[in-house]
Amino acid sequence: MQITTWQADAAGAPLQRSSAELLPPGPGEALLEVLHCGLCHSDLSMLDNHWGISSYPLVAGHEAVGRVVAVGEGVPETLIGQLRGLGWIAGSCSHCALCLGGDQNLCADLEASVVGRSGGFASHVKAQQDWLIPIPDSLDPALAGPLFCGGITVFAPLIDEAVSPTAHVGVIGIGGLGHMALQFARAWGCQVTAITTNPAKAEEARGFGAHEIQLLGDLAATPNRYDLIINTTNQPLDWDAVVNALAPKGRLHQLGVTLEPIPFNVFPFIAGRRQFTGSPTSSPASLLKMMEFCARHGIQPQVESLPMHEINTAIARLRSGDVRYRFVLDGPA
Amino acid sequence: MQITTWQADAAGAPLQRSSAELLPPGPGEALLEVLHCGLCHSDLSMLDNHWGISSYPLVAGHEAVGRVVAVGEGVPETLIGQLRGLGWIAGSCSHCALCLGGDQNLCADLEASVVGRSGGFASHVKAQQDWLIPIPDSLDPALAGPLFCGGITVFAPLIDEAVSPTAHVGVIGIGGLGHMALQFARAWGCQVTAITTNPAKAEEARGFGAHEIQLLGDLAATPNRYDLIINTTNQPLDWDAVVNALAPKGRLHQLGVTLEPIPFNVFPFIAGRRQFTGSPTSSPASLLKMMEFCARHGIQPQVESLPMHEINTAIARLRSGDVRYRFVLDGPA
Repeated sequence: MQITTWQADAAGAPLQRSSAELLPPGPGEALLEVLHCGLCHSDLSMLDNHWGISSYPLVAGHEAVGRVVAVGEGVPETLIGQLRGLGWIAGSCSHCALCLGGDQNLCADLEASVVGRSGGFASHVKAQQDWLIPIPDSLDPALAGPLFCGGITVFAPLIDEAVSPTAHVGVIGIGGLGHMALQFARAWGCQVTAITTNPAKAEEARGFGAHEIQLLGDLAATPNRYDLIINTTNQPLDWDAVVNALAPKGRLHQLGVTLEPIPFNVFPFIAGRRQFTGSPTSSPASLLKMMEFCARHGIQPQVESLPMHEINTAIARLRSGDVRYRFVLDGPA
Repeated sequence: MQITTWQADAAGAPLQRSSAELLPPGPGEALLEVLHCGLCHSDLSMLDNHWGISSYPLVAGHEAVGRVVAVGEGVPETLIGQLRGLGWIAGSCSHCALCLGGDQNLCADLEASVVGRSGGFASHVKAQQDWLIPIPDSLDPALAGPLFCGGITVFAPLIDEAVSPTAHVGVIGIGGLGHMALQFARAWGCQVTAITTNPAKAEEARGFGAHEIQLLGDLAATPNRYDLIINTTNQPLDWDAVVNALAPKGRLHQLGVTLEPIPFNVFPFIAGRRQFTGSPTSSPASLLKMMEFCARHGIQPQVESLPMHEINTAIARLRSGDVRYRFVLDGPA
């Protein structure tokens, strides 16, 4: 079938409205008609071939919300007409120990929605059935897209590591990821601190659920404070201050891919049983639980919506940091 | 009371046989007559004031085994005559959230056996009751000393982190700590690999329980292999190779205090949910479980015993790496 796409023909090139041939959904797959698609920093990395894994023409977009319009072999026809969301992963092997154990997001053969595939900045996008996540009735589909990448990225450190609601959680960086992390941690029952370099964000951070605001530069003054620090940024930090701000048995969870290695002094890790962890997106089971959690607690990303034909404007503004807190492009493409 | 000590009068000075005044055991404390005391690398660090926390005259020794000869207020007299072991920690506050939660080893007010106190290279040593650990009948008291520091240091990453017996465990460094780690991991039910720079240790490593031997330089050739790597060394390594040798969700557990910070590239941590952890000695509960585990599985350190008056020989040989795998000094002092 012919689909409409917003595609880049080379690294860094502006997106062009175009059309492409898409094979019908294969066994286990379903086809979404895209209604909305969030714009993520990882889309910029893919469009710029920052990771060296892009191929052109490239159709980015991996926070898609749409309606199932066709199914492949083995997928029940009852899916047709359902609202579903798609994130970074569109397929996994289903048969390795990781997939069988519920860690499909760590499968060695996973298929990323925008790597060697056509993504959500298009009229249609395909994915395996289990990676197309139902959207509860009480959530607004026009706002739900960013949950499927940015949202699950910050929900994962809570659910997949079984964080206790008694924990004191600090979130470094109040942006596309951080503003959702604050909402999740607050609803999780935790004591929540927004850690930022920008005091102007304090009021909004409180609106997202932060009990307290701490300036990043003040971290060194509060040793042994946090059970969990989720770092959504990828800039160099005063890592000694960050690690020492962890309570005994506390954990620094890194989500931003820093360009330079992080130089950790090991003594605070040894003396205090502190931990360093990271995670990518999460599994279908965690995505399902996140959606239910969002519905129960009224959690939604704060988005600015633009029609998809203004996608190049959204990209330019995201590059310059001019977004609070996430762009969603509305179809039709 | 007057006790006999082997004490250093200055940083790096040879130990002198001497005598000192020791106050009788206070409330909650008991007094051991020392029968045996292991020699640990941390004793060298204390004797040399490597950490800047030593005060002289210094009596080191924190792997002591002895018989209770006096008890303080609140300690049952039935302890008198019992064989007990003492490790790095001689006291904790008992009342903070960490102590109450079973993490007494992380107490902010813990008392180390050889920091501001007189240690086990002496005729007698004191400690709080709960830090004096009973020694099961089936264990040889002359060999048990190193369990209380070196042993618990490598048992902690298994018990305190609830490692699964299905895990593939690699142990880097087959020395005083590593040779016990191999025994523990084997008895824990794991697949065990000794990772070493010294192929001459292969046969002995197998004797301690290693299923396989891997040369440290070959780690880069086996990505995604280990669920847990316990690093007992404090030398710079090819950290990318070590981290990438971890399976998804795998964990690098650091026990050696490296002089330089460890420069971690974050991508393998994020993409594979890998973890970095560390730990000091463990809690009384884990010490009790370790002793029972050693008795059940016949685990004991491989030691070379010397009379305590040869302690300076033992220290000199440990400094030069001439020990397989742990010195124990036998009393009387």
